[in-house]
Amino acid sequence: MENNGNGVIVGNNTNINAPTTITIKGILGLLMETIDDAVSNEKRVISLGMGDPTAYSCFHTPNVAQDSVFNTLQSLNFNGYSPTVGLPQTRRAVAEYLSRDLPYKLTSDDVFITSGCTQAIDVALTMLARPGANILLPRPGFPIYELCAAFRHVEVRHFDLVPQNGWEADLDSLEALADHNTVAMVVINPGNPCGNVYRYKYLEKVAEKAKKLKILVIADEVYGHLAFGDNPFVPMGVFGETVPVLTLGSLSKRWIVPGWRLGWFVTTDPCGMFREPKVVERIKKYFDILGGPATFIQAAVPRILEETEEIHFKRTNYLLKKSSDICWDWIKEIPCITCPQKPEGSMVVMVKLNISLLEDISDDIDFCFKLAKEESVIILPGTAVGLKNWLRITFAADPSSLEEALRRTKSFYQRHAMRV
Amino acid sequence: MENNGNGVIVGNNTNINAPTTITIKGILGLLMETIDDAVSNEKRVISLGMGDPTAYSCFHTPNVAQDSVFNTLQSLNFNGYSPTVGLPQTRRAVAEYLSRDLPYKLTSDDVFITSGCTQAIDVALTMLARPGANILLPRPGFPIYELCAAFRHVEVRHFDLVPQNGWEADLDSLEALADHNTVAMVVINPGNPCGNVYRYKYLEKVAEKAKKLKILVIADEVYGHLAFGDNPFVPMGVFGETVPVLTLGSLSKRWIVPGWRLGWFVTTDPCGMFREPKVVERIKKYFDILGGPATFIQAAVPRILEETEEIHFKRTNYLLKKSSDICWDWIKEIPCITCPQKPEGSMVVMVKLNISLLEDISDDIDFCFKLAKEESVIILPGTAVGLKNWLRITFAADPSSLEEALRRTKSFYQRHAMRV
Repeated sequence: MENNGNGVIVGNNTNINAPTTITIKGILGLLMETIDDAVSNEKRVISLGMGDPTAYSCFHTPNVAQDSVFNTLQSLNFNGYSPTVGLPQTRRAVAEYLSRDLPYKLTSDDVFITSGCTQAIDVALTMLARPGANILLPRPGFPIYELCAAFRHVEVRHFDLVPQNGWEADLDSLEALADHNTVAMVVINPGNPCGNVYRYKYLEKVAEKAKKLKILVIADEVYGHLAFGDNPFVPMGVFGETVPVLTLGSLSKRWIVPGWRLGWFVTTDPCGMFREPKVVERIKKYFDILGGPATFIQAAVPRILEETEEIHFKRTNYLLKKSSDICWDWIKEIPCITCPQKPEGSMVVMVKLNISLLEDISDDIDFCFKLAKEESVIILPGTAVGLKNWLRITFAADPSSLEEALRRTKSFYQRHAMRV
Repeated sequence: MENNGNGVIVGNNTNINAPTTITIKGILGLLMETIDDAVSNEKRVISLGMGDPTAYSCFHTPNVAQDSVFNTLQSLNFNGYSPTVGLPQTRRAVAEYLSRDLPYKLTSDDVFITSGCTQAIDVALTMLARPGANILLPRPGFPIYELCAAFRHVEVRHFDLVPQNGWEADLDSLEALADHNTVAMVVINPGNPCGNVYRYKYLEKVAEKAKKLKILVIADEVYGHLAFGDNPFVPMGVFGETVPVLTLGSLSKRWIVPGWRLGWFVTTDPCGMFREPKVVERIKKYFDILGGPATFIQAAVPRILEETEEIHFKRTNYLLKKSSDICWDWIKEIPCITCPQKPEGSMVVMVKLNISLLEDISDDIDFCFKLAKEESVIILPGTAVGLKNWLRITFAADPSSLEEALRRTKSFYQRHAMRV
């Protein structure tokens, strides 16, 4: 119980405590505070911590996107409220955009516009929450799911992604985890934090397993189309006729505009479970209490989705391929970290930390804090995404920064290596 | 229980039902659908339903606001993520802006940037939710509170605002409503839907009563400073030393930009209850799962708050005063509606509907639907804000539209008047 001098009660049960979940932003903030000014005067801070490519000049927002928002702002026609579920033209444009890669057509009614993919995650979890409900989350994963589940009172059950198996899960293991209170499983593809892209065959099996377990699939495709290896990106909605899929996405990564907060929650569900009037009404009412993205940004979306040239996407994937190759090559130069699989999607990769090769480093968190202090390099400890003694490295950086950060990481290793 | 052909369970308890709360946007949407095309070809649709002045050309966004957002967008420096609680400079600017009217200084740490005031309402209710908690809401009020309370599992208890008493509540009546599970009371000032502005003395008594009841005050000041009558606008935070106050606000109304979704949740709490580390951590973690407003809009806020000229605010209040006078005069011309108090703030006013003077109108909802159909005029039924057989009229419209809408309402009355 918290009680101030006035005797006013803020809360008197365990709810008052923040969920214990670590957040990526929380731990990155602590790492930034660890930076030693004396060191960073000599060695500029390089963050490979967050999936925000806008920090590096080689990645940029396509002109058409920037220009579209300029125009909708300048028109003065979009300073007013939009419908809380999104402008009709925005919903329609997203439906058309996603339908390009599906064997059926989405309609405007399937699309709800959110304030970034983060809010889409909250919508999905809140809509599925009910007393006793549990959800199957991948480990490693994206901790906003755990945090959101804690706030919305959904129990979390983890299934392991297997590094030596292209970060696919052993789907049979889900049977032991799921029960009649299981509402959904989450698939993040392209993978965060793993940098993998799932094969068609695997996703098909996911759909069949979910159908068997009578659960939905939440497909987090915030990194959709950022695939530059052998496996093409396959949207989970392709299997929407097997099992209802909730597709979450945003402009953030593919258009390099995470700060625009323009995302979507989409019922890729041709069998229409989410078109039940009571379900639709509940979703709509939930959107009435959400803030949603700015109307003029929404109004720019149709042109952005229609007119962004293929060259922008190709260039982004080319840059990501190049920097992931640099990352892959450098990892091999640093004996204490190993990468089970070359990254082929998203902007991040997981590497295993071999603590036994280090003299005075106790674990991944210790590694990252000492690395920040001594080298002004920020890398995310795997613990933050559910895997102790792993690291998540963001390779969405310009090549020189990436190389410099990994060079410093190598010299950090050399200084801390176990003497034999 | 909802069960589609696949046997997938969407939800199997009462949670699946949408909260039964009526929403303003929901009912306005239904009214719009009622518009008869044949009529609206002759009589253009005039909506006095929503508090969105951008629909009328006489109200406009100040140039400095428009220009600031242009600049931050154009700079390309703000396409990336902001901290989830808001950009530091935005938090600081809002703290300084609100501190101008307070007997103490707020700091950046007191301010959390939200996606409009709507999201600030959700933050307040979610942060106060705990099993068994209840909240005291004004009747009439703003139904997003009821909807949000339903989603966050907070019980609602209503206290009546008394029309003949300037829409002040009988504060002694709160004693019978509140118990040890009551967490807060809500005060909306300037008033929505009542158009009143509370006296300093009344707000002081509210603070003392809340202190006695050991509850917080949630001060919804989304219409802050839109006061054009005898009572000046007094922010509830003035009484923050008596009782902790959560101040909710936004740029939406005062800067005529509801679509920008830029709001704030502020702990106007000089005694520091909300600075307890555990409380702060919980608020911060909650912001990690919210979308929040666009970074470049946030970045424009410091200049907007500093440089908007007084003439813009004066002009807006002058226009609101003028249109509320027109509204007041016309109401007196329509026998079946009476206004207990001349509006002196916000953009809306409540009028009482005397059903006994009408022949074939059963209640406020019937009145509004027939008015929409026959006259292409949209007015909100009082039922939507908690008062049956009242109407909420938005006067934030250009004078000619307002007069035309009320002229049509008068002729609607004449057609439906009880024959004596």
